[in-house]
Amino acid sequence: MRIPLDFQSEQPLYRQIAGYIRQGISAGGLATDVRLPSSRQLAADLHVNRITVENAYHELEDDGLIYTRVGSGTYVLPLQPMAPIPRQEPGAPWPLWQQAVQSRTAVYSDPVRDELIHSPGHPSPILFNKGVGDIRHYPVDEFRKVLQSVMRRDGMDALDYGDLYGYKPLRETINQVLASQGLLTRPDHILITAGSQQALALITRLLLMPGDVLITESPTYSGALDLFRALELQVVGIPVDQNGMQVDKLEKLLQQYHPKMIYTIPNFQNPTGVCMSLARRRELITLADRYNVPVLEDDYVGDLRYEGRMLPSLKALDPGGRVIYVSTFSKMVMPGLRVGFLAAEGPVLDGLAQYKHVNDLATSSLLQRALESYVTVGSYHAHLRRTILLYRKRRDAMLDAIHRYMPPDVQMDAPAGGLFIWLGLPKGWSADRLVYPAWEQGVTFSPGSRYFPDRADGERWMRLNYVANSPEEIEEGIIRLRKAMPQMGKQND
Amino acid sequence: MRIPLDFQSEQPLYRQIAGYIRQGISAGGLATDVRLPSSRQLAADLHVNRITVENAYHELEDDGLIYTRVGSGTYVLPLQPMAPIPRQEPGAPWPLWQQAVQSRTAVYSDPVRDELIHSPGHPSPILFNKGVGDIRHYPVDEFRKVLQSVMRRDGMDALDYGDLYGYKPLRETINQVLASQGLLTRPDHILITAGSQQALALITRLLLMPGDVLITESPTYSGALDLFRALELQVVGIPVDQNGMQVDKLEKLLQQYHPKMIYTIPNFQNPTGVCMSLARRRELITLADRYNVPVLEDDYVGDLRYEGRMLPSLKALDPGGRVIYVSTFSKMVMPGLRVGFLAAEGPVLDGLAQYKHVNDLATSSLLQRALESYVTVGSYHAHLRRTILLYRKRRDAMLDAIHRYMPPDVQMDAPAGGLFIWLGLPKGWSADRLVYPAWEQGVTFSPGSRYFPDRADGERWMRLNYVANSPEEIEEGIIRLRKAMPQMGKQND
Repeated sequence: MRIPLDFQSEQPLYRQIAGYIRQGISAGGLATDVRLPSSRQLAADLHVNRITVENAYHELEDDGLIYTRVGSGTYVLPLQPMAPIPRQEPGAPWPLWQQAVQSRTAVYSDPVRDELIHSPGHPSPILFNKGVGDIRHYPVDEFRKVLQSVMRRDGMDALDYGDLYGYKPLRETINQVLASQGLLTRPDHILITAGSQQALALITRLLLMPGDVLITESPTYSGALDLFRALELQVVGIPVDQNGMQVDKLEKLLQQYHPKMIYTIPNFQNPTGVCMSLARRRELITLADRYNVPVLEDDYVGDLRYEGRMLPSLKALDPGGRVIYVSTFSKMVMPGLRVGFLAAEGPVLDGLAQYKHVNDLATSSLLQRALESYVTVGSYHAHLRRTILLYRKRRDAMLDAIHRYMPPDVQMDAPAGGLFIWLGLPKGWSADRLVYPAWEQGVTFSPGSRYFPDRADGERWMRLNYVANSPEEIEEGIIRLRKAMPQMGKQND
Repeated sequence: MRIPLDFQSEQPLYRQIAGYIRQGISAGGLATDVRLPSSRQLAADLHVNRITVENAYHELEDDGLIYTRVGSGTYVLPLQPMAPIPRQEPGAPWPLWQQAVQSRTAVYSDPVRDELIHSPGHPSPILFNKGVGDIRHYPVDEFRKVLQSVMRRDGMDALDYGDLYGYKPLRETINQVLASQGLLTRPDHILITAGSQQALALITRLLLMPGDVLITESPTYSGALDLFRALELQVVGIPVDQNGMQVDKLEKLLQQYHPKMIYTIPNFQNPTGVCMSLARRRELITLADRYNVPVLEDDYVGDLRYEGRMLPSLKALDPGGRVIYVSTFSKMVMPGLRVGFLAAEGPVLDGLAQYKHVNDLATSSLLQRALESYVTVGSYHAHLRRTILLYRKRRDAMLDAIHRYMPPDVQMDAPAGGLFIWLGLPKGWSADRLVYPAWEQGVTFSPGSRYFPDRADGERWMRLNYVANSPEEIEEGIIRLRKAMPQMGKQND
């Protein structure tokens, strides 16, 4: 048998031999029961090592193309019909199931972001659209040292799966921090999650099915709205005033829609910055209890208060098992850490732990241990005090700049805490249409349409993050924003 | 006004004063429009600082209980009816929505594990029930150093949110490792996830709705089955033989059930350890294409092969956009790291990236960067070679011990790779009932019922992890397992 071999090729010789014989079999040139030359013979024919031929024969044997009868020789087997795999031609449509995904994804994608990603930007943009604090103030060096000592102390335990509910000492620390904020719970009522977003996703998924109704403030956190849309829930909004969710409108909606959950951000609501009054908090819990509806409390920056007195969280008012509380250290310490937590009791707590397990098995044990090592009640409050001083100045700088540079008919309330100012443009203006001109001027913001169940309700609103930039940057950013506005004004004329 | 004050109490005086007045108002002792003493007067009455009284009045004002008329005095406001919050009495039933969770959670909980958690164990148990490698061989020190240098190099970037698809250099490394395994894809077709379990959860959730049918091997990975049950899918199993899923039975099921996905582990299938033949791989893809069904390929230890030749992954045979490939470094490097990945193309890839975003925003940037720094194609293959040498010896040790100590009528095939031996007990025996006696002897295994869509099909099977223990421990463990067995035999007599 003669086989053309390429001794310069990167493909090993045995592969070339096997490939040639394989082709011969599939093309019919080597028919069933044909006896192949012995490996010694073929090696001599081809001037290769006998091992090379044996390797080729082994490969063909593994593929079920030939067989060796001991003492007799090697033979071609009957050809098993191999399914001809269809090819995806360039430009051909995707399979139908892929096309179906496409139509569902569009519901919760963010066209504004997509537009900016593909456009050239200002050389030094000022970003007011972020959801987090100033990354320049993250405790990078301290955290590096903590990681080191945790790895030295815990060794392989830090790299294994941990406790189903999360690293126990971290749950104990969280319990202490919550107690210092007036929320008494227990370490075994706390479940560690991969950031608070995962907590929201797990709770919503466990308790609701596609098509179910969920009640939330309108506007509310866009990441929660995106989640609810992705889960194909029906979102019913309750308007927000200076005292938070208008709970007096809740009972009628409970009767009308039989919702499966109420999602709320009672403290420094995202995006409006308002706090729910105590009377409304109590009323909300009472109604939720009467109508058998779980309350999901998102306390993303509840303790980031610059003035006034702290109100009890809904969870602190919970008679037991009615409220699921979600929070995180991300906004305070470092967002990329992806460690959040929830507090709950009753069957839903164990249900969530099991549900988390099927979703991702566990949250990184190393990061939980590092966070536990880094956060104590004392260090947490010291960090909180410093942060409050820093962020209050920045809030004031932004309020100031808005008063100085913005048209007098913009609408805004000074927030008593949190990260954001919620700014209403004069009637008839569109924040969505301001995104791109602002980007060209070198400033970003988050358009209000992202925060409303009905996007159109957010037309003239924008959310401005005042904590991620210095007072000087804030002033410059507001000036740039103002420069972008006449262009939009003209669009509307 | 006289207010009993406790100067030894930990409660601040102003709180005690406010609390007393609040009680007075709610009990009716202080009626609407009653004028309260001036702060100067009350301070004198109580022998406290005037500021203390002012703080108490501020608190009551914030609560909407009193108001101050300038130049006139401080008055009690009409009492706003505060909702009386119901209490959860000890022993009272949970709210109905909580009870509903309880009944749903039971579907995918693991009674065997729950039983053992609450029972006292052997002082030095040998664990054959684990799903991972030998934690004593994790590269703890190397990884510690890598974390350090990444934190020094990247600083705050390592603690911020990262790219929607995951850290790009890590996707490039994964692309190279996959190419070295015969799977050609692209870095921008890879999505980093929080372990492969999250990838399975995201894909299944995006593509299926509760009640939809999913086809899988029977038996299959228990973590996937738990996930499918948690999502309330209808799971249809196809039996497995020595060549993997019996694909010849697939077309009939496709016609009968119109499934929305096929989930398969073609290499060293969990729990059976078998590999799907090349002919079946091709047939599977062709059928999935013809019937418009996505294929989810779980390649959890595809390259952990001790002998024989590697087969192309389904993804390598994919004509384009038909197969979603999921894998991880967890089994090789360290399970607690929680970094996995998927490879796909078409609309489903962007859909999954968006879907991951609403589920947890991002996977820890720090861990992605550390993994990228730790893994190169070269170091990966060096680690793989060492691991294969180690694990092959352990597999042989377990095969040997089973031949030596187990009854001759147990059923087993030697796996050519992976982590597990799938052992069939003699007919009529129950692995579930052996769990507790084995625990008392000081050995664990994973009972077969966990791996079957219909648990009863797994009655006499068990999965044994042979990689997590030394050969000596393996021999001792099998001896202990044998000791536990006669007790069970008696139960069946």
